[in-house]
Amino acid sequence: MDEPLNLVLFSGTDDRLQAAAVLTAGAAALGKPVNVFLQYWALHAFTRAAIGDDHGLAPEAGSAGRAAVTALANAGQATWAETLRQAKDLGSVDIQACSLSMDLLRLEPEDLDPLVDGVEGVTAFYLSAGEGQVVFI
Amino acid sequence: MDEPLNLVLFSGTDDRLQAAAVLTAGAAALGKPVNVFLQYWALHAFTRAAIGDDHGLAPEAGSAGRAAVTALANAGQATWAETLRQAKDLGSVDIQACSLSMDLLRLEPEDLDPLVDGVEGVTAFYLSAGEGQVVFI
Amino acid sequence: MDEPLNLVLFSGTDDRLQAAAVLTAGAAALGKPVNVFLQYWALHAFTRAAIGDDHGLAPEAGSAGRAAVTALANAGQATWAETLRQAKDLGSVDIQACSLSMDLLRLEPEDLDPLVDGVEGVTAFYLSAGEGQVVFI
Repeated sequence: MDEPLNLVLFSGTDDRLQAAAVLTAGAAALGKPVNVFLQYWALHAFTRAAIGDDHGLAPEAGSAGRAAVTALANAGQATWAETLRQAKDLGSVDIQACSLSMDLLRLEPEDLDPLVDGVEGVTAFYLSAGEGQVVFI
Repeated sequence: MDEPLNLVLFSGTDDRLQAAAVLTAGAAALGKPVNVFLQYWALHAFTRAAIGDDHGLAPEAGSAGRAAVTALANAGQATWAETLRQAKDLGSVDIQACSLSMDLLRLEPEDLDPLVDGVEGVTAFYLSAGEGQVVFI
Repeated sequence: MDEPLNLVLFSGTDDRLQAAAVLTAGAAALGKPVNVFLQYWALHAFTRAAIGDDHGLAPEAGSAGRAAVTALANAGQATWAETLRQAKDLGSVDIQACSLSMDLLRLEPEDLDPLVDGVEGVTAFYLSAGEGQVVFI
């Protein structure tokens, strides 16, 4: 359990981000360090300007899926951002923005939500990952 | 080859489920145990009510992709559910529903197809996964 | 660092393929062997007929995402195909087409772009992967 879990977040829809947050929180609860690397549309979702928005769901969710997600949110389910904040309190969770995606979206570090710990390139991501599992979401 | 392969199925479209079934069957054929953890729209696809339905394809498939998938199905290709049933006969394949997604979709264990072996939380999933690879589909 | 990184490419949109190319190039730069296994819509994108096309973006990209990707391409960013060619010069990158997806799309080996090194089944993919990480994109 010493090797970290390494999540590459690419997708920025609320359902995939929630799945990623649950995987992060579960690993943190087990004492496993988690590295999160934000690319493309996931990075956009972690900006100060966008983190509180509705980021939509995968197209396959359909109207029934939409209704289920909304009902659970109305019943008080934590958002993915709240779940990640809790996971950071619970364990070792490091969230880094991909420098190439920062350029793509023309973002500066001050544009990012405080959940994000820094900006790094893919080489630094691999060096942190070590021999731990890499999961692309 | 002793560590299991651990597939987190999130997406419920027939093309991704077929890719997951092929990865499962291949690992089972090599004697590798496989743990499958069903979340969100993939879990919906494993319900008794929905498992026989057409679950659509990724939006990028387009009409040419749709035609190719339909032609192969008409030529007798096994569905992803059939491939998973065969993989269970062949090797050690354990399929668990994510308890949080059960709540989201308001499902009870009796709503699930017999392919599903049980319901568990993310912590139990990690404990089964051990040091094996985790793949998110 | 001796175990290979193993990427299963399923999605054929330019944003996911670019993310895959960056992960490949980063691993190759660190001296890690990379095995790429092409399925479904990713395989279609690697055909001679289609590799130069616009393959679209994930639906969630929206018009702002589209504009950002186009602006970076106009500024001279390498395409994913160019990045993969460079990664092959830099390190050990082996790209194989999934034989089942070849059947699905009715492709022959001569239909594939020279970036693709061959055609193999899922068992051969697992044997090459060894104990290395498997990432599904």
